[in-house]
Amino acid sequence: MASGGPEIEQLIQLLARLPGLGPRSARRAVLHLIKKKEQLMLPLSAALDRAVLAVKSCEVCGNVDTTSPCSICADPRRGESGILIVVEDVADLWALERAGVGQVRYHVLGGVLSPLDGVGPDDLNLEGLIARAHDYSEIVLAMNATVEGQTTAHYITDRLTGTDIRVTRLAHGVPVGGELDYLDEGTLSQALKARTVI
Amino acid sequence: MASGGPEIEQLIQLLARLPGLGPRSARRAVLHLIKKKEQLMLPLSAALDRAVLAVKSCEVCGNVDTTSPCSICADPRRGESGILIVVEDVADLWALERAGVGQVRYHVLGGVLSPLDGVGPDDLNLEGLIARAHDYSEIVLAMNATVEGQTTAHYITDRLTGTDIRVTRLAHGVPVGGELDYLDEGTLSQALKARTVI
Ligand SMILES: [Zn+2]
Ligand SMILES: [Zn+2]
Repeated sequence: MASGGPEIEQLIQLLARLPGLGPRSARRAVLHLIKKKEQLMLPLSAALDRAVLAVKSCEVCGNVDTTSPCSICADPRRGESGILIVVEDVADLWALERAGVGQVRYHVLGGVLSPLDGVGPDDLNLEGLIARAHDYSEIVLAMNATVEGQTTAHYITDRLTGTDIRVTRLAHGVPVGGELDYLDEGTLSQALKARTVI
Repeated sequence: MASGGPEIEQLIQLLARLPGLGPRSARRAVLHLIKKKEQLMLPLSAALDRAVLAVKSCEVCGNVDTTSPCSICADPRRGESGILIVVEDVADLWALERAGVGQVRYHVLGGVLSPLDGVGPDDLNLEGLIARAHDYSEIVLAMNATVEGQTTAHYITDRLTGTDIRVTRLAHGVPVGGELDYLDEGTLSQALKARTVI
């Protein structure tokens, strides 16, 4: 039977569809919300309403913001470096921003090429990238180090061949604070090849 | 810097306060919501609004429902067994309902006695339990098998001494599907003591 009535059951089922939450943790989350009705449930309800109205996808780069163009695309200082970082996903853009990579711009592909999953060039924001790439002097390919990520990087590199745009990728290596014996051999050998003088 | 504007940042911070979600998973959840705006974000927003309006705490048992008395307290068949199960939390009530324990009623204490944390009898729904216990022939104490849970069980047992109400507790034993070598010794020795003929 459904515990707590249809309104509560439906809230549990919707929350269970969020990444990282299953039916069990969604139930715990809903009980927590109900317990903290004034301090958490009401503010969350209001914040969600506000976000639904405010959220836009940036028509230039694919970032998520409350304006389009987004605050990064609209900031002229972001253009001065001439660096455009290509990422798979908005989450990657946010991660680079948290890392404080500096006054750069981004381009969100919205995925990676994956012939097996039926994802071709037209399914990604690739033409938008090729069109705006010419405004930048360097394109940093920051796709994940997966087969699909690297296939996508090759595709973009090919498309930009013959231009004078510098195409680079993120360095491979040992994560800061990472322990060597937890790393795969590919990372280790790349880290050794790319070793630097101290 | 805040990624995605103040509306998104605030939503992340509120979601991060749910049990099982941290700042990282809250960010992922919000990005997922934004990606699935029509299919998930809008329905979740509406469901939360409805739940905020509908949710009530049952004045009889402490359950969470959309009516008070809750559907369990209002159902006369639930009273026929004469069994009242005392739980710490609404989550425990829901777990017992999912387990299909039958036509019983519940009483939610809202916590356990914990002198170290300053939780005394007046902080729990204990007087309500003592008052309604006399309508039942058996009180099953289903608090967690912690020191505080057992202290609370003793307190209730003492309060009901001298009445003709039968006070019981859940059996200890090996969880169904549980592996012996992952169990603590207390559980194992209790399971051996309570062994049954096959
Ligand atoms: Zn943008
Ligand atoms: Zn009730």
